[in-house]
Amino acid sequence: MRTFSSASARYTQEENLRIGRWTQYPGLDGLPFGAMWYVVPPGEESPRDCHPEVELAVVVQGAGRFASERGDTVDAPLGTAVLLDSEEPHVVHNASSDEPLVVMSVYWMPGEEPRSAAGA
Amino acid sequence: MRTFSSASARYTQEENLRIGRWTQYPGLDGLPFGAMWYVVPPGEESPRDCHPEVELAVVVQGAGRFASERGDTVDAPLGTAVLLDSEEPHVVHNASSDEPLVVMSVYWMPGEEPRSAAGA
Repeated sequence: MRTFSSASARYTQEENLRIGRWTQYPGLDGLPFGAMWYVVPPGEESPRDCHPEVELAVVVQGAGRFASERGDTVDAPLGTAVLLDSEEPHVVHNASSDEPLVVMSVYWMPGEEPRSAAGA
Repeated sequence: MRTFSSASARYTQEENLRIGRWTQYPGLDGLPFGAMWYVVPPGEESPRDCHPEVELAVVVQGAGRFASERGDTVDAPLGTAVLLDSEEPHVVHNASSDEPLVVMSVYWMPGEEPRSAAGA
């Protein structure tokens, strides 16, 4: 059993975001996805992002609002996961003026055969 | 862009837990993992669980404490992810006496080649 804490992770500043890539944790080569924490300051929004990986963004602190250039905008309070398609341009807003927005993002390349994920 | 909300998911009662399996959401066959929400009532703990899948449990509301029969117990406040090995027996405690513990759990079978997960 191992724990990974968004509060004690090591972050790097990238534009106005703090990014905590899980490559900082040794021994995670077997995960079927890449992962990171990222923090959007109160009242701010992320730079526009677009990448080939499919992304599942999970709000683990604060409240977000995700805007896709494909036309939709969704509120993402605590306990919401947002699935972004490959090459779907998006911006992540912190919907709070006083609390950081913390997101756990997992991502993977699309188009491969799904792995067995039944049961549990 | 699609959103999945732990607050509005459909849950089934399984022993003292509420389980919201993501199989309720159509079109997610391409995810490289299975997923569920689960809710532990205030002050209670999950039944002992043990399964072949590796599990990443992410606390998205409340505060948890995970106990593994391999000997360790870890606090898991909001914004913490806990990685459980295949066949690692575990119990999940709600560390709060008045707030539900909500966990997003993703799980996959170990031992296959990792998928490409670089970049993002």
